[in-house]
Amino acid sequence: MSRFFSEKFASLIPYTPGEQPRERKFIKLNTNESPFSPSPKAIRSAAEAAGRLQLYSDPTCKVLAEKVAERYDISPDEVILTNGSDEVLNFAFMAYCDKDHPAAFADITYGFYKVFAQLHNIPYTEVPLRADFSVGVEDYIGIHKTIFIANPNAPTGKTISPGDVERILQSNPDNVVIIDEAYVDFGAESCVPLIKKYDNLLVTQTFSKSRSMAGARLGFGIGCAKLIADLHTIRYSTNPYNVNSMTMAAGIGVMEDEAYTRKNCQTVCENRAFTAAELKKMGFEMTDSMANFIFARHPAVGGGVLYTKLKERGILVRHFEKPRIEDYNRITVGTRDEMNALLGAVRQILEENL
Amino acid sequence: MSRFFSEKFASLIPYTPGEQPRERKFIKLNTNESPFSPSPKAIRSAAEAAGRLQLYSDPTCKVLAEKVAERYDISPDEVILTNGSDEVLNFAFMAYCDKDHPAAFADITYGFYKVFAQLHNIPYTEVPLRADFSVGVEDYIGIHKTIFIANPNAPTGKTISPGDVERILQSNPDNVVIIDEAYVDFGAESCVPLIKKYDNLLVTQTFSKSRSMAGARLGFGIGCAKLIADLHTIRYSTNPYNVNSMTMAAGIGVMEDEAYTRKNCQTVCENRAFTAAELKKMGFEMTDSMANFIFARHPAVGGGVLYTKLKERGILVRHFEKPRIEDYNRITVGTRDEMNALLGAVRQILEENL
Repeated sequence: MSRFFSEKFASLIPYTPGEQPRERKFIKLNTNESPFSPSPKAIRSAAEAAGRLQLYSDPTCKVLAEKVAERYDISPDEVILTNGSDEVLNFAFMAYCDKDHPAAFADITYGFYKVFAQLHNIPYTEVPLRADFSVGVEDYIGIHKTIFIANPNAPTGKTISPGDVERILQSNPDNVVIIDEAYVDFGAESCVPLIKKYDNLLVTQTFSKSRSMAGARLGFGIGCAKLIADLHTIRYSTNPYNVNSMTMAAGIGVMEDEAYTRKNCQTVCENRAFTAAELKKMGFEMTDSMANFIFARHPAVGGGVLYTKLKERGILVRHFEKPRIEDYNRITVGTRDEMNALLGAVRQILEENL
Repeated sequence: MSRFFSEKFASLIPYTPGEQPRERKFIKLNTNESPFSPSPKAIRSAAEAAGRLQLYSDPTCKVLAEKVAERYDISPDEVILTNGSDEVLNFAFMAYCDKDHPAAFADITYGFYKVFAQLHNIPYTEVPLRADFSVGVEDYIGIHKTIFIANPNAPTGKTISPGDVERILQSNPDNVVIIDEAYVDFGAESCVPLIKKYDNLLVTQTFSKSRSMAGARLGFGIGCAKLIADLHTIRYSTNPYNVNSMTMAAGIGVMEDEAYTRKNCQTVCENRAFTAAELKKMGFEMTDSMANFIFARHPAVGGGVLYTKLKERGILVRHFEKPRIEDYNRITVGTRDEMNALLGAVRQILEENL
């Protein structure tokens, strides 16, 4: 830290992304990436756009916004495109939280919410999940805070129903409720249809997971036109050309190839069911994950031990040194081959340790 | 604006990007884009990266940082890569400005500085340029503010010498001075070598102009390792994967093809000299621009009139409705053909109006 760094960031602890090792080839099951290449249509469109990079990208993201609107049966002015969904989450913290509108989110959830709150000096409450890691809906009723809920939640993969989200929306009518649906395409029910009914609902999604575009950085927010206008005000005051033209082209391509996305999601769901069943046979306990990862612990092998021993065998999973979940590992669901490699390694480790 | 939008943004006026018309084919001389395609090496690398988009980009930007460091004879920990140089400027406002460290910048300069100050609720002073639009160096001596100077300045194209920057750095030892070198590759002298001598200097640059990558969104900051560490703290608390993998690959490609960049810059400088000379023959007055644009006015035709009449003829330039410069237009230097089209249109307009 330099001697010039503003005091307001003195205690800021940045987000720690999952490891992205370059030195060795791992089976990467640690950052919830898709095991599939992006749609060929997306690849082709992005490559074409690379030849025209001398021109700025369209700051209105017009065509892509229309494609997303069409897909979700909303209007283009009800969607904002961002440089990954982290950016729309950041904008939401800026737009809807301040000292009079503190933030609330689960104690165990996407780690970036707390970082955003600290970054913008926003008071926040961490609401404990229930013992089974489900969201205690009653804990959010009438709390008059700006609420962030990941659905499905990370790293647990557990869901909250749109009906429960409605109860939270209704009881906090003067605060925005943000439902972070980064993992919604793997079996959970989306809250997007509720934006027509609630002016205080913002739903965020990403192209990183189900659409195989983590490296392209593309996310979006969906809400009533007035909420989206707020976020555009922040965007045009931060980085008007936030989405580059190759990513925009890839996003358009992938939206035109929805069948490809659906097929990949289905494969991931099948591989998730297969892997979960096999892990259960080995004695693992796990949450009922509706995301592209499994959150599991073994009664006889610590989470940190399993993480380390898998890494030694060339398999990366994500372990969080955090109260309540330190026994667990979050394992991204990959291809069937990757899952078989994982299961084989886990079997070996259990044999050595039991 | 929604009823939820935080009061702190009540009077925020976002940045207005230059027009990006999609409905009609214009000769675009309004956003200082390069008239040349990016390096073939950059296009090829970006297209290859499009096939691997399912994986996150490298949050450390390791290889690209090394390339930039090599080019500028600095260490990789003295550079930070960002999603356009707007992002590194935003981070600098966050890191180095607060109520005890107000910002200072010229009254006529890149319009985003004022927006960033307002966005983050930072007190700021607009320091008037001299009558000839040069930077009044003495106005910045010992002012104990965080100073932002575009060099060359936009929209004037005028420069400040590294010697004068040193005087400003020395007299404000407890504040960071940011030199925004977006346009430095078209004939101005860079302040990058000064980072070895001054711990309070941050230089920002971009791949958008000289490197033909406006659509890719890539910028960077150069400063001593401690300053760069501050900016990484902000970056990892905002958007750790801020640079997507296609842009990163294109950036690496273009850094490996420096001869291509140099050749294009030389062509732009030649076309600038040619166009300036022709405009002078027609009676235009202009600043001595060291950027890839010309800032000119005609004693007989108003800036707004010329802008409108050029647009009617399919040529877009940039006009600012702003005191002191409303008589001027900022004209991006394009290819020789584009410049001849511009000059032809200007000749016609002058004939009709004189």
